[in-house]
Amino acid sequence: MASKRLHLHICEQLRELVEILQDPSPPPICLPHDTQTGSADPNQMSNAEDHGEVPNDAAPRFHLEKAVSHESLVIGAIENAFKHMDEQIERERASQHLPGGCCALAAIYLMGKFYVANAGDSRAIIIRNGEIIPMSREFTPETERQRLQPGLFPALLRPELLGKEFTHLEFPRRIQPKELGKKMLYRDQNMNGWAYKKIEEDDLKFPLIFGEGKKARMMATIGVTRGLGDHDLKVFSSNIHIKPFLSCFPEVRVYDLTQYEHCPDDVLVLGTDGLWDVTNDKEVAGVVMEVLTSYEPNDPCRYTMVAQELVVRSRGVLKEHGWRLANDKLGSGDDISVFVIPLGGPGNYA
Amino acid sequence: MASKRLHLHICEQLRELVEILQDPSPPPICLPHDTQTGSADPNQMSNAEDHGEVPNDAAPRFHLEKAVSHESLVIGAIENAFKHMDEQIERERASQHLPGGCCALAAIYLMGKFYVANAGDSRAIIIRNGEIIPMSREFTPETERQRLQPGLFPALLRPELLGKEFTHLEFPRRIQPKELGKKMLYRDQNMNGWAYKKIEEDDLKFPLIFGEGKKARMMATIGVTRGLGDHDLKVFSSNIHIKPFLSCFPEVRVYDLTQYEHCPDDVLVLGTDGLWDVTNDKEVAGVVMEVLTSYEPNDPCRYTMVAQELVVRSRGVLKEHGWRLANDKLGSGDDISVFVIPLGGPGNYA
Repeated sequence: MASKRLHLHICEQLRELVEILQDPSPPPICLPHDTQTGSADPNQMSNAEDHGEVPNDAAPRFHLEKAVSHESLVIGAIENAFKHMDEQIERERASQHLPGGCCALAAIYLMGKFYVANAGDSRAIIIRNGEIIPMSREFTPETERQRLQPGLFPALLRPELLGKEFTHLEFPRRIQPKELGKKMLYRDQNMNGWAYKKIEEDDLKFPLIFGEGKKARMMATIGVTRGLGDHDLKVFSSNIHIKPFLSCFPEVRVYDLTQYEHCPDDVLVLGTDGLWDVTNDKEVAGVVMEVLTSYEPNDPCRYTMVAQELVVRSRGVLKEHGWRLANDKLGSGDDISVFVIPLGGPGNYA
Repeated sequence: MASKRLHLHICEQLRELVEILQDPSPPPICLPHDTQTGSADPNQMSNAEDHGEVPNDAAPRFHLEKAVSHESLVIGAIENAFKHMDEQIERERASQHLPGGCCALAAIYLMGKFYVANAGDSRAIIIRNGEIIPMSREFTPETERQRLQPGLFPALLRPELLGKEFTHLEFPRRIQPKELGKKMLYRDQNMNGWAYKKIEEDDLKFPLIFGEGKKARMMATIGVTRGLGDHDLKVFSSNIHIKPFLSCFPEVRVYDLTQYEHCPDDVLVLGTDGLWDVTNDKEVAGVVMEVLTSYEPNDPCRYTMVAQELVVRSRGVLKEHGWRLANDKLGSGDDISVFVIPLGGPGNYA
């Protein structure tokens, strides 16, 4: 249901741009009075323009005027759609009894381009002629250190937010009380390198970001730093809200389909962490190749079969000691959703 | 004088790491009690280790322990040296009657590696076999949007800091009062794309970051977002301090000299903005090549002559209508300092 709502929000944002995007000249910096880009009714907009009240600002008439591309308008629309979705979840969480949150990964095809928007730990890759092109990156406390650390600044200014229970300093591991007075490696939010400092009482507090890679956690609670919802999430057994440290804004990557000739084996693969936890990019590309070549290039089922095979392989087979992968490692315990979208369209090989 | 002080701070920070850096095993996460890495006296450290009070933590004994490299210790030392320099400037600005600020670019050669630390709008490049390798990047309100925008968060929380005179929204150009009620392109600190919004009274405030490229200014005041000093700098005719938005921390880039065979024409060029305002990387590389080939490879003067030539060409020649470059454009009005450091050492061509 959430994905349908997000779909609606994205449509709503884009609908208002239809006329501007169809016009090959740069988007107008300023629209005339009463233009209803803020509403969901595209008709009003053309009305306003028909009135011809104020000339359109398309031609740069100011010295310091930034050029804004059509592409960045679409990106802005998708970003705002995610924000509106997050606000809707906030409004409806009580009536819908849905206090949780989720990550979101959306692929929007518009005027020859794929816009892949990601907020969370899902992942998208394009496989083109066997080559892997990442279309998203994971947002974990580690990968987002750069964003989170300046974001911690308000926390430092407002101790009530941090609950006086966390230290903003990063240490290579937890400090033990008996180590008070020793010198330990640390870095603060401005540093990329490390230095030694004498351990004080305050340093024994729990670090805001702790752990590495998939195990990194923010405030010992969540491992994902972007996503929708989770408005009421608090640090375990405390009154500290997590939401101010989460971002609902996606990173949007753009792939221009018109720049390449795509064959029927070129695909965009979208998957949740259940897939990527146990299957890396290369393995996914291998399965794509393997399954696609076992079907005729004009068989519409072949992409569905790839997605199904990717899910099955990541889940594994139920054996005596639980779900096991082909290599006998544990199958993915997380939810596994996979989409495989053809870039070349059905057809014969060239 | 400031450069000598910064030199001292860097030496002081590095001196404490001498023994650790000479030990090929990973830096210990934790040092024994009373180890004086915090002081300037390296002898006390070896004393403490001689006592053998507490075993050294070099071997990872904890599950979640981050590996810290020697290199990142040096980076941390340089970062802290910049911070201490900034604090010294703050302490002494009254007694020394030095209220200003400056950018800082430092190149440190240590154990086979060049560490280039940059805070400001100076620039360093390596020219190796004619190839240009950037060793720094400029820090302007535009390039640092990512750092500044989350940094603006505290400003949003504390209106008294922003003086209620600035808007955190970005518009492609200044808005005119008569445009109130129109729809204009904008983006906020979370967005990479652009969208339309109806212009309200608040949007007429001056934008925090305004302008593009070299002309971009933060709070209409400074064009550089990192540097030392400027503790008392305020927004023109206001009480708003700029310093909270400035960072004294450098970005440190590392170049491993042992990874390549360097010839006597391979150099590191450090220059202030006076050089780079009128001379681009490629032109600098051209002058380097031109001047170096006109001297014997074992002539120690040749690097000095390159630096001199770069300064002269950026200043230009005094003509009727002021200082003019070879292309008759205006010469650099800013200060021009250039260092040219050989990477291959003097010698004959191989």
